Amino acid sequence: MDFKEKIVTQARLAKKASRSLASLSSSSKDQALRQIAELLLENENKILTANQKDIESARGKQLSEAMIDRLTLTSARINGMADGLREIAAQPDPIGSVDRMWKRPNGLEIGLLRVPLGVVAIIYESRPNVTSDAAGLCLKAGNAVILRGGSEAIHSNTAIIQIIEYSLESTGLPKESIQLISFTERQAVQELLRLDEYIDVVIPRGGESLIRAVVENSTIPVIKHFKGVCHTFIDDKADLLMAQKIVINAKVQRPGVCNAMETLLVHKNISDEFLPSIIAKLRDHGVEIRGCSKTQAFVPDVIPASEEDWFKEYLDLILAVKVVDSIDEAIDHIHHYGSMHSEAIVTSDYQLARKFLHEVDAAAVYVNASTRFTDGGAFGLGAEIGISTQKLHARGPMGVKDLTTTKYIIYGDGQIRE
Amino acid sequence: MDFKEKIVTQARLAKKASRSLASLSSSSKDQALRQIAELLLENENKILTANQKDIESARGKQLSEAMIDRLTLTSARINGMADGLREIAAQPDPIGSVDRMWKRPNGLEIGLLRVPLGVVAIIYESRPNVTSDAAGLCLKAGNAVILRGGSEAIHSNTAIIQIIEYSLESTGLPKESIQLISFTERQAVQELLRLDEYIDVVIPRGGESLIRAVVENSTIPVIKHFKGVCHTFIDDKADLLMAQKIVINAKVQRPGVCNAMETLLVHKNISDEFLPSIIAKLRDHGVEIRGCSKTQAFVPDVIPASEEDWFKEYLDLILAVKVVDSIDEAIDHIHHYGSMHSEAIVTSDYQLARKFLHEVDAAAVYVNASTRFTDGGAFGLGAEIGISTQKLHARGPMGVKDLTTTKYIIYGDGQIRE
Repeated sequence: MDFKEKIVTQARLAKKASRSLASLSSSSKDQALRQIAELLLENENKILTANQKDIESARGKQLSEAMIDRLTLTSARINGMADGLREIAAQPDPIGSVDRMWKRPNGLEIGLLRVPLGVVAIIYESRPNVTSDAAGLCLKAGNAVILRGGSEAIHSNTAIIQIIEYSLESTGLPKESIQLISFTERQAVQELLRLDEYIDVVIPRGGESLIRAVVENSTIPVIKHFKGVCHTFIDDKADLLMAQKIVINAKVQRPGVCNAMETLLVHKNISDEFLPSIIAKLRDHGVEIRGCSKTQAFVPDVIPASEEDWFKEYLDLILAVKVVDSIDEAIDHIHHYGSMHSEAIVTSDYQLARKFLHEVDAAAVYVNASTRFTDGGAFGLGAEIGISTQKLHARGPMGVKDLTTTKYIIYGDGQIRE
Repeated sequence: MDFKEKIVTQARLAKKASRSLASLSSSSKDQALRQIAELLLENENKILTANQKDIESARGKQLSEAMIDRLTLTSARINGMADGLREIAAQPDPIGSVDRMWKRPNGLEIGLLRVPLGVVAIIYESRPNVTSDAAGLCLKAGNAVILRGGSEAIHSNTAIIQIIEYSLESTGLPKESIQLISFTERQAVQELLRLDEYIDVVIPRGGESLIRAVVENSTIPVIKHFKGVCHTFIDDKADLLMAQKIVINAKVQRPGVCNAMETLLVHKNISDEFLPSIIAKLRDHGVEIRGCSKTQAFVPDVIPASEEDWFKEYLDLILAVKVVDSIDEAIDHIHHYGSMHSEAIVTSDYQLARKFLHEVDAAAVYVNASTRFTDGGAFGLGAEIGISTQKLHARGPMGVKDLTTTKYIIYGDGQIRE
């Protein structure tokens, strides 16, 4: 069997498994999730040995240290995977609830029943802990899942999937509910992305080029999470002490994530008072500043920002800084250069807060808080499968409920259309 | 300016217009909708003259009578367009409502604000009345819209869009809110489908090949409405008089639409009693029957159904009939051959009704009613832009609310992430 045929078979079996998963009780799903968690811990050594192979091969290929770090599993990370699964098991089951139900004049009762999406494909890069997180969230929502991790993590992922398959079988669930594509060829992803007959949605997780490639090639609907080029705008009516705390938190607390701030926008009226001190403080935290010409006028030794800097997701201790004439210029800048992820204003002015909230077109818009809060946990949604920057289906942090859909159920007693 | 450049410019202007539309009051939008309705009626002759050109050209190209019928506007159809717009104006505005709002332990208040999608592109075939329906629904939801109708209707659509543009300007809305792509080249659609920078969603309306082509080529998220291969399963515990009424209604009342029944599934235990009489009644209504071998055993003169018949959306007075051994065989048949549109069971058995509702994976699942009810009007959702057979974002009849999305709004007082 060539790999194309094998992938089609996997997808067909996933579709079949998804039919049984759709009507599983919550307790069966939760039992399987807890079983996977337990067996991951019991098989820690096996997973670490497999992971070691991936790491050695990555070193042989001279991959970057950052990539090797993402690839590396430790006892603590395996514990984190197990905890994640238990947390997912403890969440309420979204499936089976009827969101609304109403009666038509002809007596038909029409309801919206929450049901699984069906089969979800997750395409991700080298982090093997995504394997259990993504599998767990999909299973909780009653979906079958096809996982395609980065080729660098193939040994780790294979070890993890074996444990998952064993757990599924031992708790009476079809083992095809959670499958790994074991072909590391790029062509395997291309094949997968054309299987709209079996797969209901694709979620790519990783860098911009991965996501762009999935969008370009998929005939299956995609939920995408592009980069986070997040801004914070400090209005001239801001509490400057609050602004300082928020700016430092949004840039410094964890610079490598998508909800960290990449560009600071400062109203011209407070630039002389605010810019020199905030730039000094950011530098104390090791932040490199790239500024517009007006910023350079206030702080002569900042590096000049190029046009490209305004588009950049640094994911690092680098910050672009721009002085703007008005809130309108700030909003225009955000719309032109931003990625519709998380945007904040710091202001004490009621009208401007309201204007910013309503006019800024992004997944999350903040007044007087750090953009770092954009995630499922911080929003109180539970574990998340990603943060959608698209507008269809799900926008912002995506939890278990975003892995479901609805169907209309209609109870009649013989109604026909006149 | 070549046509590619022109289309990019149109899309960019639509994006710009969408920013103002997002914060328009309901009354401004409704006023514009009513103004368009009024001017369509006032300019009836102008529209009919343009339409006449399209019809002559279609006759010259020897297009089918069915296509010419879809292309033809009459005084009654223009009245229908105007009524449709007034109905849309009378509906509640979905924009600006906060679906939920909650407070986190750290004091952050997080809400889900309903907002427009942004820019919607509608790609459709030769019916010029879609031009005003689609434009009206998009505008009501605060979206800018780019319309690309079939080349056969170009004169009619141009006449309609001129009236729309004039109405927008005279009520103070940006005229780029509703735009027509006037290039009839196929390449124009290809260009449009790559403009994900400006367009947020594409909705194709038309036959399967149009929709398939859009899905294949679009980098913009697509909401699709594939064909409706709808089934009705008559269980052996059905009230056969009710079954007869439902079957005839689902097939005969309006066979050319997507929610009409295409295949009848009958439980073997009632085939001898039910099949001969229902087939005779259907034939009285002019329906051609294509049956499985068991159906032929009961009614020897039915045409044998081929494998392809089970996949067919006849949209005509033709019905495929199959005898099944059990509800499980019926559900498997539906999943294998169906299009996840509308499916019905007729039964008096509680467990089987429940099983069918839960296990059948379709946009609308009925117990004891005709599949013909699947539409926005019959469900009580108001005017619809189509019926989604996909699972993401919207499933089933799509009304104004399905042309919106949400964004998280977060009110803080200086919160930072620890």
